[in-house]
Amino acid sequence: MSYFKNVSKIQFEGAGSDNPLAFKHYNENEVVFGKTMKEHLRFAVAYWHTLTMNGSDPFGQGNMIRPWETVSGLDLAKARVEVNFEFIEKLGAPYYCFHDVDVAPEGATLKESNENLDVIVAKLKEGMQSTGVKLLWNTANMFSNPRYVHGAATTSNADVFAYAAAQVKKGLETAVELGAENYVFWGGREGYESLLNTDMGLELDNLARFFNMAVDYAKEIGFTGQFLIEPKPKEPSKHQYDFDAATTIAFLQKYGLDKHFKLNLEANHATLAGHTFEHELRVARVNNMLGSIDANQGDMLLGWDTDEFPTDLYSVALAMYEILENGGIGHGGVNFDAKVRRTSFEPEDLFYAHIAGMDTFAKGLKVAAKMKEDKFFDNLIADRYASFTSGIGADIVSGKANFKTLEAYALQHSEIHNKSNHIELVKARLNEYLFGGK
Amino acid sequence: MSYFKNVSKIQFEGAGSDNPLAFKHYNENEVVFGKTMKEHLRFAVAYWHTLTMNGSDPFGQGNMIRPWETVSGLDLAKARVEVNFEFIEKLGAPYYCFHDVDVAPEGATLKESNENLDVIVAKLKEGMQSTGVKLLWNTANMFSNPRYVHGAATTSNADVFAYAAAQVKKGLETAVELGAENYVFWGGREGYESLLNTDMGLELDNLARFFNMAVDYAKEIGFTGQFLIEPKPKEPSKHQYDFDAATTIAFLQKYGLDKHFKLNLEANHATLAGHTFEHELRVARVNNMLGSIDANQGDMLLGWDTDEFPTDLYSVALAMYEILENGGIGHGGVNFDAKVRRTSFEPEDLFYAHIAGMDTFAKGLKVAAKMKEDKFFDNLIADRYASFTSGIGADIVSGKANFKTLEAYALQHSEIHNKSNHIELVKARLNEYLFGGK
Amino acid sequence: MSYFKNVSKIQFEGAGSDNPLAFKHYNENEVVFGKTMKEHLRFAVAYWHTLTMNGSDPFGQGNMIRPWETVSGLDLAKARVEVNFEFIEKLGAPYYCFHDVDVAPEGATLKESNENLDVIVAKLKEGMQSTGVKLLWNTANMFSNPRYVHGAATTSNADVFAYAAAQVKKGLETAVELGAENYVFWGGREGYESLLNTDMGLELDNLARFFNMAVDYAKEIGFTGQFLIEPKPKEPSKHQYDFDAATTIAFLQKYGLDKHFKLNLEANHATLAGHTFEHELRVARVNNMLGSIDANQGDMLLGWDTDEFPTDLYSVALAMYEILENGGIGHGGVNFDAKVRRTSFEPEDLFYAHIAGMDTFAKGLKVAAKMKEDKFFDNLIADRYASFTSGIGADIVSGKANFKTLEAYALQHSEIHNKSNHIELVKARLNEYLFGGK
Amino acid sequence: MSYFKNVSKIQFEGAGSDNPLAFKHYNENEVVFGKTMKEHLRFAVAYWHTLTMNGSDPFGQGNMIRPWETVSGLDLAKARVEVNFEFIEKLGAPYYCFHDVDVAPEGATLKESNENLDVIVAKLKEGMQSTGVKLLWNTANMFSNPRYVHGAATTSNADVFAYAAAQVKKGLETAVELGAENYVFWGGREGYESLLNTDMGLELDNLARFFNMAVDYAKEIGFTGQFLIEPKPKEPSKHQYDFDAATTIAFLQKYGLDKHFKLNLEANHATLAGHTFEHELRVARVNNMLGSIDANQGDMLLGWDTDEFPTDLYSVALAMYEILENGGIGHGGVNFDAKVRRTSFEPEDLFYAHIAGMDTFAKGLKVAAKMKEDKFFDNLIADRYASFTSGIGADIVSGKANFKTLEAYALQHSEIHNKSNHIELVKARLNEYLFGGK
Repeated sequence: MSYFKNVSKIQFEGAGSDNPLAFKHYNENEVVFGKTMKEHLRFAVAYWHTLTMNGSDPFGQGNMIRPWETVSGLDLAKARVEVNFEFIEKLGAPYYCFHDVDVAPEGATLKESNENLDVIVAKLKEGMQSTGVKLLWNTANMFSNPRYVHGAATTSNADVFAYAAAQVKKGLETAVELGAENYVFWGGREGYESLLNTDMGLELDNLARFFNMAVDYAKEIGFTGQFLIEPKPKEPSKHQYDFDAATTIAFLQKYGLDKHFKLNLEANHATLAGHTFEHELRVARVNNMLGSIDANQGDMLLGWDTDEFPTDLYSVALAMYEILENGGIGHGGVNFDAKVRRTSFEPEDLFYAHIAGMDTFAKGLKVAAKMKEDKFFDNLIADRYASFTSGIGADIVSGKANFKTLEAYALQHSEIHNKSNHIELVKARLNEYLFGGK
Repeated sequence: MSYFKNVSKIQFEGAGSDNPLAFKHYNENEVVFGKTMKEHLRFAVAYWHTLTMNGSDPFGQGNMIRPWETVSGLDLAKARVEVNFEFIEKLGAPYYCFHDVDVAPEGATLKESNENLDVIVAKLKEGMQSTGVKLLWNTANMFSNPRYVHGAATTSNADVFAYAAAQVKKGLETAVELGAENYVFWGGREGYESLLNTDMGLELDNLARFFNMAVDYAKEIGFTGQFLIEPKPKEPSKHQYDFDAATTIAFLQKYGLDKHFKLNLEANHATLAGHTFEHELRVARVNNMLGSIDANQGDMLLGWDTDEFPTDLYSVALAMYEILENGGIGHGGVNFDAKVRRTSFEPEDLFYAHIAGMDTFAKGLKVAAKMKEDKFFDNLIADRYASFTSGIGADIVSGKANFKTLEAYALQHSEIHNKSNHIELVKARLNEYLFGGK
Repeated sequence: MSYFKNVSKIQFEGAGSDNPLAFKHYNENEVVFGKTMKEHLRFAVAYWHTLTMNGSDPFGQGNMIRPWETVSGLDLAKARVEVNFEFIEKLGAPYYCFHDVDVAPEGATLKESNENLDVIVAKLKEGMQSTGVKLLWNTANMFSNPRYVHGAATTSNADVFAYAAAQVKKGLETAVELGAENYVFWGGREGYESLLNTDMGLELDNLARFFNMAVDYAKEIGFTGQFLIEPKPKEPSKHQYDFDAATTIAFLQKYGLDKHFKLNLEANHATLAGHTFEHELRVARVNNMLGSIDANQGDMLLGWDTDEFPTDLYSVALAMYEILENGGIGHGGVNFDAKVRRTSFEPEDLFYAHIAGMDTFAKGLKVAAKMKEDKFFDNLIADRYASFTSGIGADIVSGKANFKTLEAYALQHSEIHNKSNHIELVKARLNEYLFGGK
Repeated sequence: MSYFKNVSKIQFEGAGSDNPLAFKHYNENEVVFGKTMKEHLRFAVAYWHTLTMNGSDPFGQGNMIRPWETVSGLDLAKARVEVNFEFIEKLGAPYYCFHDVDVAPEGATLKESNENLDVIVAKLKEGMQSTGVKLLWNTANMFSNPRYVHGAATTSNADVFAYAAAQVKKGLETAVELGAENYVFWGGREGYESLLNTDMGLELDNLARFFNMAVDYAKEIGFTGQFLIEPKPKEPSKHQYDFDAATTIAFLQKYGLDKHFKLNLEANHATLAGHTFEHELRVARVNNMLGSIDANQGDMLLGWDTDEFPTDLYSVALAMYEILENGGIGHGGVNFDAKVRRTSFEPEDLFYAHIAGMDTFAKGLKVAAKMKEDKFFDNLIADRYASFTSGIGADIVSGKANFKTLEAYALQHSEIHNKSNHIELVKARLNEYLFGGK
């Protein structure tokens, strides 16, 4: 049975094409900077936005037209599995990602929820085997159910902590069963509404305890994928503990967890925290913590997580530049944590939107690769910091210098000559890579 | 005497060029959408950012290297006039803009200030005649001097109102003398620090009185240029009265001034007010109030007026699209109200930065022209609103319908069929115009 | 039958009380500045936040404990009417407000929806008669149903415009039936997602046509209440046409509608638009457009409409000061467009939250009244602008002055003497009114 | 000689006083929560805002009336020392703080700058001895001079690093000479303008090298004060490395510097980073890193560092609550990093502003002390987290539990009972502490 009868496998037709159901830039087997696009980008489809997002917002009801949503419960869950694999195969993405509650309905008890999950995981496994689609990562949704109203690992209610532990235990078992390459934590309710009633010290200690238990259990069951934490500053929480990359790194360092975790960074979360996406990637990179990305974009004039499909070539090209500098995304991938706008409510919009995002990333990859190949920015940086490669600069870097030797030097060299950064020229050159003749 | 010895007239070399002192996209005589680029864009150089901006910021001293700044007072003012025309000629911009205090030093008295201005205006006139460079607009700086600490036309001190009136009177005479095509008001201190000590009603009435006097005096002395108001929401004021396009229009309507004024819209002011630049242009356009633009860009993660040179092609292309939709910018132009970053402190950076801005606008113009020629968006809009061209929709537009006829219709047609906007497809198409094959 | 068995009528117990179910400041019959608190404040309970808000957010399911939610459809709607009046009577608020879909379920057709409404409106009328509670305003929800995905009066689909017209027609009839003192328009979907597919000119013309039809129909059926527009800048729309007070006034002026409408201003909408609440009230006041208020507060570090109960005394006292300056709120009132936090999910929280808001407004009223009685700020303003009451200042205000007379004056008075505003002293004095000995 | 002839020593007159030059709440010897107000608050006057801030802003010239500014160079520097001590003595603050360039003019060479500093430091020492005023902290200004355009410890120019080292060396010697209780680093230019030309890894490594050299040199010369880092997210930099408390802690941990440094937290920097002030204090507190505070406030609707005097009692009371929870501010203090508004330009405004800030902190201290004494919030928190003190909760905290034992427990306890946080009641109670009967 086909759920998207009017859509065939999406083909690469190149930049001139007017076909809305074709790639203009993503050509999966094209080799760029030493690897195929497919290997570089490792695209993943997000189950929640593609299969279960219904278009509702705080002021409006669900409005998405999804013709297969005629049944409910486990039957609907099974139908969605079929839709998922048909969609991904036609799109041509190698991976997908999900939360437990995206794929299987919660039962009346934990036991029943787990049983539902077992049914669906078996069906997912079957779909993966028949299509070759792989699981980039899975995660446990510990923020939607009312039980998590005060948090999961940082809850004020020990029973909830236990429930959350059981849920992640099952999640890790699912990860093993489906061969997930990563396991993600996003702590949507791990934060606070008011400091007045919050014991931040205990909550953070408990969060670390929770992560340590996860690490232990993963070892026990042989899960060898990468653990990832996804920072976000706020929403739904007033303040979320994993505010941004640096804050999450501080937490991991404090509790000695930094060797077990990397970061899953999202563009829209970056901007909500007051950073560019490339900033977050850079911070992770210089700390050797870049794990994976959630590809989307926000609206810089809106203060909430709009999760738009990524189409801003500036942001995407600079993100890909960081990823190339990082030597690639490793076990991670480019997961479209993005939803079609509420005004794009027809099934075909799912394809249009993913194509828009994949083409933007493909173009961004090519731009970043050209920037790397030309070494324009590499050379610019080498020149800029050249004074640290010899003389007093080399002494500083090697640890030979101290305040007394530096003062002696400075007394002899107190007239300083700096060079202009020509920043507008740099931005013009970036434009040439993006839009011009480079 | 030459102030930029290492720079010749900037030439168009096309997109492949590596020459930092050449245009890659701006080819002034190239015809696009029925006019030359020069006629479309009407570029202007801002005297303040080019000649007098010294690189200081709230945490740092001036640092710009400007070799001609060896004298002071009127001598410096005269030298700057020469630099100005050499710079503009080499750049190839047809216009410039200035505040009174940019060009001539303030004297100890109003009389002395006016005399200084007379000396410099004569020299400017001479420069204009010998180079063919024209004055897009001039304005009076009524925000820097301590006398304007509580505002100018909205001051709490009647003596200050009188002084401001005298300053604008002189400004209008200058505009006539130099053939300015517009006269601009930007009310940096017209607003409030605290509502607790502010009589907003009186202040706004006085502002209207001031504008009416300006209109009267312009008529009296035969100034036929366009009056423009430049909205900005805040900075230096906590709240500025001309917050954005809509607020300024409300004010002009209330006081019957809307027929005498249009708007000078700035990109960075738009974003500080919570709008895109194209939004402000659209609001002005549908109100027939689009007068001119201040071309620059802000940093969406910084909350102050960074006045960066415009290099974001998305924003510039959409701005040019609004201008083409408007039938052009009329008597206005594209004035670079933009300053080089503090880290770009060498004289050549002035050229690099203007070239970056002009190339971005040239590319943006070509993109917008192609979008107009293809009618892709025109057709999309025509389709989208087609229901208002016949039947009940036509009755609504023509005024035939009322709540009773509409209810009767709705009772018969209560099942609604909307169409998806396919917004991600629309954004992908925009990308193709910007960086793809369109 | 009682739905809040553990709660009796809330009593005033004064500032020392530890009783969470008692007023500390709101003493309805206490006379302040010439009227009782009840007359000044005209509190209203919002039906949507009190009866139908279930605690869901974009990342979480509904979690509110509402013991009466055991039935569905019209039966639930009827139960909620009973809960509503019991709640309001126990709270001691004189008014309530609702959207059509809050009180009655939508039917399969417009006709059925109207019939449902008729049933519930009859029951509401009965409740109002038996309790004496009055309707401050009603409105039509034209943003939640999928039919309004592209807007209501500004839709791209003429059938939707017709449907919206029918819905407001019924709303006006309901207003007459229940004696509503105002009728409100909030255009949650009247705006745009993207300018690229939006005909802003047509949409705004249609919006004006819609309002004119409403004015005509109100006249026809004898509705004599005040029409109100509630500005909001964004959310759910990317950009909402009624961005803020000034933008809405511009629109009303342009289409000659300003004599028929006033503004319903909300604190959280003000801050989302970049303004303080008191700013919006002041703008409305100086334009004679202050109609009513939606009392709540946002979180200045969150970018969405949090609709928190108002507890910030600074903001509330300054809002009440504007209202006293306005000669009162007129036919409007203080409507709690505020919802309990998701973590406050027990039924009693509805009382705690309203008491918090009412006490804050009562205290704010007393503070504002004292400020008015002392004339501290009145005197400060009179002093500050004294120069406009005689001499050149009086000439400016009376229209006698012009640029030539002002220049002549300024040439004689070019040394300016301004006075400090002592703004920190002013803020310290405000603190004394709020927290100190005043 | 007296510089403030019209001002006598500021006296405590209590809440009823109308005297603008008297304290209403700050009564230095009043004992609150076990210590005098003076001991709790350890107020410091900031030299830069009080002595050298001239009222200029990016759009306006200096306008402050400072009658003693009649000389220049070292003479002016000496006069300011006298003004400083007269001001502080009359105000009654125990401490002051300064940057090197605030107190002594920079010379043509490093040597000359150091000599100027020697002259003034001697005079400061004399003033401190004669008045008993102490130095809370000093610091080196490494952001205003053009040499620091690309950063100081994170510069791209090794000569600049050396110069900065020499400057801090002198700063530490000054700290020893004057008995400073802390030494502060604020890295205004330690960040980036563009990632495209920035080697973030090298820059951060160099920053750590710089701090290590400072620690070594302090040890060598016997400086025993506390090192403090002051986080700020941006301005003047586009992005500053010490973005907020958590980011700074991550950096210190990574380089093993956390044992040598604590944080100096500023209210306005907190809000620019998207946090409340109390959040930053809490984060520092739970990491044992709370060192000192810069007392001021921002404007939540303005996106730059407004450095207003602190008058918001909500923020100040919650900050004092964190400080009491921390067991006090230790060697730190409450430094007024705050400037009078540009419209408050008379000398007396310096007193009015400091009095406003000191009274707000005194009131805030009393409110926080009452909150602590009543244990209202302590009890609320103890109740809320009680489930972690026994049973499964205690097992979690003690490390006995793991995912398997927790799953077993959860399978038996899968129906969760959470309690409401009653957050509106909590906020109402806070209001009673602030302005009600508590």
